[in-house]
Amino acid sequence: MAAPRVCMISRRATFSACHRLHSSELGDDDNRAIFGKCNNPNGHGHNYTLEGSCTSCVSMLQPRAALSCPRSRTNEQVDPVTGMVFNLSELKEIMERKVLSKLDHKNIDKDVPDFEGVSTAENIAIYAWDQLQSALPLLHEVRLHETENNVVIYRGE
Amino acid sequence: MAAPRVCMISRRATFSACHRLHSSELGDDDNRAIFGKCNNPNGHGHNYTLEGSCTSCVSMLQPRAALSCPRSRTNEQVDPVTGMVFNLSELKEIMERKVLSKLDHKNIDKDVPDFEGVSTAENIAIYAWDQLQSALPLLHEVRLHETENNVVIYRGE
Amino acid sequence: MAAPRVCMISRRATFSACHRLHSSELGDDDNRAIFGKCNNPNGHGHNYTLEGSCTSCVSMLQPRAALSCPRSRTNEQVDPVTGMVFNLSELKEIMERKVLSKLDHKNIDKDVPDFEGVSTAENIAIYAWDQLQSALPLLHEVRLHETENNVVIYRGE
Amino acid sequence: MAAPRVCMISRRATFSACHRLHSSELGDDDNRAIFGKCNNPNGHGHNYTLEGSCTSCVSMLQPRAALSCPRSRTNEQVDPVTGMVFNLSELKEIMERKVLSKLDHKNIDKDVPDFEGVSTAENIAIYAWDQLQSALPLLHEVRLHETENNVVIYRGE
Amino acid sequence: MAAPRVCMISRRATFSACHRLHSSELGDDDNRAIFGKCNNPNGHGHNYTLEGSCTSCVSMLQPRAALSCPRSRTNEQVDPVTGMVFNLSELKEIMERKVLSKLDHKNIDKDVPDFEGVSTAENIAIYAWDQLQSALPLLHEVRLHETENNVVIYRGE
Amino acid sequence: MAAPRVCMISRRATFSACHRLHSSELGDDDNRAIFGKCNNPNGHGHNYTLEGSCTSCVSMLQPRAALSCPRSRTNEQVDPVTGMVFNLSELKEIMERKVLSKLDHKNIDKDVPDFEGVSTAENIAIYAWDQLQSALPLLHEVRLHETENNVVIYRGE
Repeated sequence: MAAPRVCMISRRATFSACHRLHSSELGDDDNRAIFGKCNNPNGHGHNYTLEGSCTSCVSMLQPRAALSCPRSRTNEQVDPVTGMVFNLSELKEIMERKVLSKLDHKNIDKDVPDFEGVSTAENIAIYAWDQLQSALPLLHEVRLHETENNVVIYRGE
Repeated sequence: MAAPRVCMISRRATFSACHRLHSSELGDDDNRAIFGKCNNPNGHGHNYTLEGSCTSCVSMLQPRAALSCPRSRTNEQVDPVTGMVFNLSELKEIMERKVLSKLDHKNIDKDVPDFEGVSTAENIAIYAWDQLQSALPLLHEVRLHETENNVVIYRGE
Repeated sequence: MAAPRVCMISRRATFSACHRLHSSELGDDDNRAIFGKCNNPNGHGHNYTLEGSCTSCVSMLQPRAALSCPRSRTNEQVDPVTGMVFNLSELKEIMERKVLSKLDHKNIDKDVPDFEGVSTAENIAIYAWDQLQSALPLLHEVRLHETENNVVIYRGE
Repeated sequence: MAAPRVCMISRRATFSACHRLHSSELGDDDNRAIFGKCNNPNGHGHNYTLEGSCTSCVSMLQPRAALSCPRSRTNEQVDPVTGMVFNLSELKEIMERKVLSKLDHKNIDKDVPDFEGVSTAENIAIYAWDQLQSALPLLHEVRLHETENNVVIYRGE
Repeated sequence: MAAPRVCMISRRATFSACHRLHSSELGDDDNRAIFGKCNNPNGHGHNYTLEGSCTSCVSMLQPRAALSCPRSRTNEQVDPVTGMVFNLSELKEIMERKVLSKLDHKNIDKDVPDFEGVSTAENIAIYAWDQLQSALPLLHEVRLHETENNVVIYRGE
Repeated sequence: MAAPRVCMISRRATFSACHRLHSSELGDDDNRAIFGKCNNPNGHGHNYTLEGSCTSCVSMLQPRAALSCPRSRTNEQVDPVTGMVFNLSELKEIMERKVLSKLDHKNIDKDVPDFEGVSTAENIAIYAWDQLQSALPLLHEVRLHETENNVVIYRGE
């Protein structure tokens, strides 16, 4: 009987939002000095790319029996019949419901009640993680591309 | 003596901005119906990609004599010595000075005094054209990518 | 009063399909010689990218009066109030309904009753054009990327 | 004498194939419910992107002496003279011979005798790993992109 | 009987080369002033992307009879049986033989005997056109990407 | 009080350079056999993409108090007020000053005095690491893309 295999799947989604980098704990001069053009009072925006990744084990030839997955974060058992870590359609739907419905075509600072802190890419990635992890116990990593040159990676630590 | 050659060069640049699609000539219901989520009152944003293209003639082996270029929009003479339609460094500098300095990290509706009309990708492309053409008589085309899925092309017509 | 402006907008969409290049008018040897590995009896597949483009005129500052658009293929009047050639949401919906619903996750040779001829990228682009043009009288161009290296462009000629 | 350095190199290759997600251990209704449009009886296809990565140590200034590499999976010695973890040309050739020659322009379900299980991206990544690892003892990771939105990562665990 | 259709196909290929922008007709100061960092005496390099495009007519349902193609540059007849403007495999092979074999992993200034003039992107695109057109009478356009930001288009004019 | 969060940020930059793979410790025949077309005497070149990544901890809601960061490589304290691991503008400036100013539009073999060894992608990545790490104690990873198909990853080991 073949040993279970541990894979990671990742799903990409995009959303468009605007924000302003401005800390309420800093004065205007400090905000300008630290955030530069990102501190523009009327804001600016991005097409964000969000990648959510799940890890689990998958086995090609297992019977449908329960397997214990050696490195899963949750030891959740996977079904070897389907050959899937997690259904990508379900991952897509969860990312849309938990993150994109809240951030897409929104002003992150003004339209997202449970978003706190400065809307840096770091904090948006952490927000996405916090939104996803209750629905995705196998969540391993969130990547948030703010531009083609800037990426933030968060792994729940 | 080799005949002059007509090339088009194109330079890509990116900027991040926010906007709201909202027409002052329409009521709120019409605005929502037409612009959908792009009408969100607090706005949203994009990483725009702007491509500016110039056409002229270039000749590989011409002496520095004046050439009349058969399809140039301006009949401006080009220098065959350099092998260039237009200096790409200069094109980059013009695009930055004329367009990016006005739109990058800005709210297009609130921060750009000479921008008029709804800030659709069409109107932003036309604005970029209008900004560029005084400095670029050979300007042939402006392409504006609003997202990886949406592009507008404007050729000054 | 500003003159009307002619823009082209383009919308990108992707679909995944399989096919086999095989002409019923050719023998097996000819089919293998012409189509090579694309003639594999059990087929192969691609992630196709479809770009549909529409041309019309847009004016930034026109009153809502009827305008005659100088280069439109249809002389259809556009509304300067919205600043749009064509609503991108509507273009997206039409491309999904007219093309993607028929080709996505399908076997082009077996699952698309009204597709005729060898399923080359050329014929798929032409098929997409024929599907789109009744709903999009302003349709200007269809681009079909079969791989990152192969593109076909069709303009209804 | 400079200490040895551990690098990872990765090589990208693409192939086009078709498949159908369908488990012989499930009934038709379950297959449709789980795999959705990917269960289309006549199949569909993708342009897959495969990235194979190797880890080893490389030293810039070492004599050709044998080095023990601290984190190599195999402790295989590398030649500091060439500055290479592994010859990229050889990695390319191995990926073509071991994986692409079997999957490119093929029906994964019908044309690949030693492929077993449902042809999910997970199982294709695992198949690629199994093909590569006998020739690449330093193999560290396989990434398989099924579309621009879906990726699977497998590290032999 | 369906009318013939005119399509354009385009094939992408990449090559890596080095060059120095330096005109023998200009002094060192002028060369530095015009070409800037591209005039570095020991050169620099790029991964170039070349796209060659062919236009012809294709008909889905024509018998194999001779067709006159309304907009072809050559009036060459196409075979409606194959559904192809031009065999993409042949286009790929011609681009490799006529252009890539001469430029890939080469110093364009020193290793390409029949290349003349300053090795700007314009002149490389023109060189590619001149190499291709004898083998490709239907050649319509050459696009040469020097970087992700710079493109030159040449259409034989 | 929310626990500190550990993020990784990554910044992408591109440069164009040329080189020749040739080891002074090998004879001409061995150099040709090992490096193939990359051993071309007059060199060749690439558009390189460099990604530099920093890890630190970021906390959304912390007061400005000193935090000990659980997995930081340096235990450097981060300021929760700004929501940043590291200022991306500063990371960009450091990458430009420490790496791009030395490699962009240069011949890596001839123009970079402190570069030693064969100019493979591995050694260029290691060089970039060595340049960056004095200014970036949080540096976690360097990725160097030589072409769209080749990547080297170095993590300072």
